[in-house]
Amino acid sequence: MRAKIFDSTLRDGAQAEGISFLVGDKIKIAKALDELGVDFIEAGNPGSNQKDMEFFHVAKGLTFKHSKLVAFGSTRRCNGEASSDANLLALLEAGTDYVCIFGKSWDFHVTQIINTTLEENLLMIKDSIRFLISKGKHVFFDAEHFFDGYKSNKEYAIKALQAAEEAGAECLVLCDTNGGTFPDEMVEIIKDVKKNVHTELGIHAHNDSGMAISLSVLAVLNGVTQVQGTFLGYGERCGNANLSAIIANLELKRNVKCLPDGNIKDLTNTARVVAEISNFKLLSTLPYVGETAFAHKAGMHVDGVFKNSKSFEHISPDLVGNERKFLISEVAGKATVLAKIEKIYPNVEKNDPRLSMIIQRIKDLEYLGYQFEGADASFELIVHKTFGAFKPFFEVLDFKTIGEGPSKANLHSSAAIIKVSVEGIEEITAANGDGPVDALNEALRKAIGRFYPILNMVHLSDYKVRILDGKESATAAKTRVLIESTDGASTWSTVGVSKDIIEASFKALIDSIEYKLFKENNK
Amino acid sequence: MRAKIFDSTLRDGAQAEGISFLVGDKIKIAKALDELGVDFIEAGNPGSNQKDMEFFHVAKGLTFKHSKLVAFGSTRRCNGEASSDANLLALLEAGTDYVCIFGKSWDFHVTQIINTTLEENLLMIKDSIRFLISKGKHVFFDAEHFFDGYKSNKEYAIKALQAAEEAGAECLVLCDTNGGTFPDEMVEIIKDVKKNVHTELGIHAHNDSGMAISLSVLAVLNGVTQVQGTFLGYGERCGNANLSAIIANLELKRNVKCLPDGNIKDLTNTARVVAEISNFKLLSTLPYVGETAFAHKAGMHVDGVFKNSKSFEHISPDLVGNERKFLISEVAGKATVLAKIEKIYPNVEKNDPRLSMIIQRIKDLEYLGYQFEGADASFELIVHKTFGAFKPFFEVLDFKTIGEGPSKANLHSSAAIIKVSVEGIEEITAANGDGPVDALNEALRKAIGRFYPILNMVHLSDYKVRILDGKESATAAKTRVLIESTDGASTWSTVGVSKDIIEASFKALIDSIEYKLFKENNK
Repeated sequence: MRAKIFDSTLRDGAQAEGISFLVGDKIKIAKALDELGVDFIEAGNPGSNQKDMEFFHVAKGLTFKHSKLVAFGSTRRCNGEASSDANLLALLEAGTDYVCIFGKSWDFHVTQIINTTLEENLLMIKDSIRFLISKGKHVFFDAEHFFDGYKSNKEYAIKALQAAEEAGAECLVLCDTNGGTFPDEMVEIIKDVKKNVHTELGIHAHNDSGMAISLSVLAVLNGVTQVQGTFLGYGERCGNANLSAIIANLELKRNVKCLPDGNIKDLTNTARVVAEISNFKLLSTLPYVGETAFAHKAGMHVDGVFKNSKSFEHISPDLVGNERKFLISEVAGKATVLAKIEKIYPNVEKNDPRLSMIIQRIKDLEYLGYQFEGADASFELIVHKTFGAFKPFFEVLDFKTIGEGPSKANLHSSAAIIKVSVEGIEEITAANGDGPVDALNEALRKAIGRFYPILNMVHLSDYKVRILDGKESATAAKTRVLIESTDGASTWSTVGVSKDIIEASFKALIDSIEYKLFKENNK
Repeated sequence: MRAKIFDSTLRDGAQAEGISFLVGDKIKIAKALDELGVDFIEAGNPGSNQKDMEFFHVAKGLTFKHSKLVAFGSTRRCNGEASSDANLLALLEAGTDYVCIFGKSWDFHVTQIINTTLEENLLMIKDSIRFLISKGKHVFFDAEHFFDGYKSNKEYAIKALQAAEEAGAECLVLCDTNGGTFPDEMVEIIKDVKKNVHTELGIHAHNDSGMAISLSVLAVLNGVTQVQGTFLGYGERCGNANLSAIIANLELKRNVKCLPDGNIKDLTNTARVVAEISNFKLLSTLPYVGETAFAHKAGMHVDGVFKNSKSFEHISPDLVGNERKFLISEVAGKATVLAKIEKIYPNVEKNDPRLSMIIQRIKDLEYLGYQFEGADASFELIVHKTFGAFKPFFEVLDFKTIGEGPSKANLHSSAAIIKVSVEGIEEITAANGDGPVDALNEALRKAIGRFYPILNMVHLSDYKVRILDGKESATAAKTRVLIESTDGASTWSTVGVSKDIIEASFKALIDSIEYKLFKENNK
């Protein structure tokens, strides 16, 4: 059996409180989902939002291995023409092969919210789908509020599906838009729907009753083939159905394939990437992919797991690329780290003592708040340093930053002074900047750039700040800074942690520069 | 129909990572749950934990309106005597009328984990229950790993239940200890169990597959009468079944009474109290009780809710004591802003010119990178300022920050100097901090606190930084800072945006202080 995974993190997920994706964020998330191998990525609503349209323009130049991009929109306006409908035209402009349009299937919504007749709504569905198909699109139809509609006026809800079927929609997606449907009633409704339409069905559940995962899983077990959701459950109100859990439930427990062979072991890593780019902490209790999903605290549980892990684990964590965790642990994460080291030094012996030195170093740093999932260059530097392959290019002897406010127009608010030493030669210099981190970045590059002009090609392409611990005085909590740098040809990411945002940024900057110089030197 | 609610926040919930209850915390949570009206409060494992025993000693002096306290423990040790078993004696010492003991029902656990015979395990169950009943206790039996046991050896799992039934247990609780059971298989198993035992049944689900709420709800709809869980889903790994959602699902959607009449409207408040005392931020996306459970962001949803709230809400939020919320964002429309203003000034006329001034101001600020969906206090200040209700409490004349690195042990890396003026009186002061923002925060509070001592009660409870634009030089990109402040009784959120992280933070800090002073002044 096979289910098709339709991820809407970039569209319905963007309706969550606190999410605001930049075009670059969207590309990174789409790439991560494609790498994992989801079938469809719904990436925005080009007719309602200029930023979404911008993404689709950029996406035309990208290639994907597994996933098809989908543009989302609504059926045409009441009493309008499909061929001149701004929203439908925006869907064409988005340039995707697949589009997903939503239409009404709840009589109450037709007559009370969009104020039209039941007949006109059916025409809106048909016209819109026919128009899009005439332009060469594959069309999915989201039957908004389908379950509420069915409970209110069963005949009409089915008619809406039949209108979409008749017009040529390739999938009829049953949406529990308000998230209030119960699993037992949903199963009965799906059985009845299958008697009345013969097109492929999809499910789109929301979590307002806390049952979206069950609804989606049960729908598939009852013959639905497309599962819509968001990778980590992000979405309006209580969120959408959490695809990472649905995929694991179906593949590992019910033998329903959702991803290309072998890819489910990347589930946890994908979850970390999606959370990081969304600028959310990955919820630690998330099924399968959360940091505590396989963490054992009760003594009896820990003992049981040592005897046989299935005594207190429903699956083995490595199946989804996650890790078992004990409060006192000495082996956590080793396999992951070893695999990464082997990528850098393929011929290293299994019993090389430097391997355990690196693992210890990573664990110490993680304890301090570092995280290397989004900072491969920092990780690689640790490996090279432990293997003795790295020799320092420069030393920072001292820096000072000065800031002033309230800000005055056209004046930089900050300045930094830095003193570095390169092979015994000292250089002191200063720079202005917008804020102390910016000033320090400029001063550092200026000072070291005198010795290594190649650094003039390097600039930062992304800068993320995460506060790690919100207790007591929040501005003095630990800060983790992730920096992405580029020289035009390649990009690399580094990390720094400190109580002080300047120092955290500074550490990540130093790693970024050291990495570039090391790579240049070892070409 | 009626379901009995059995809350284990104080016992199984305490096994969650990050939870560590003091005796006083436990009393406060027990009181809140009693006030709401749950049937049973499982408050600890007195045989395994001295702090739990201490709670039961203190609890002997407390009276509860609705709830019965329950002490939790295990069956007697293999090959021992019930009457001298330390754990069972501790249960007696706890002094509760009700006890809940867990025993094995999975053959694998009996033979591989506790290393005894299948027969001895049945005796352990019977002896322990008989002993506790002989001492006057009401006994519930937790059949640990019941569903895994049933799938492995159906006859034996049923035998374990029958042993407990024969010994006089008042409820047989079917535990999905590892959280891997699916709703469809669970329903079938419960049907079979009901053919083989005639005692009241309970359900105890874990959320490792993300389906614990569904499992619990479906169990009740299939004849189970006791629901065990934790109020907010806290618990080991991915947590226990979330009772707040289960109660609302059953009472509001299926007419299964769980609480005393009228008490369900206290659900949200109870959730806030439990989270607060557990020292967790209440997860905002939690069904029914979360802060965004009824928050609307997409423009079309907001419009729909204005026309009729059932268009995008599965229940009315006031049924559970929660509130509707409109989020302001690029996908939201004018209607959201107007609704928020009306909450602050209920009698404002629709055509008041100040309304469009506010909308324009919000749009201008959003264009600069502000986002008000997480910053209600900053929004409210704009409204009060436009309505002319706000007069400044202080003016910041000047500030300077100084930072130094690389960091030296035990020394603050930064200092700030600030000059403020309050009604013509100037105050200049300075403070140290971990990083310039922390130093500035300290200095600002110190300077203004001289004039407004009420500010000494205020501290920051959260601090979020988001970089808005990753182009060109990323550290000079725009920075948005969101600050959450608290005075112990209430919390409020403010926002600041600037190219400079110090200035962005400073703006949010100023808003936070102005908001508090304004509220104090207008009590």
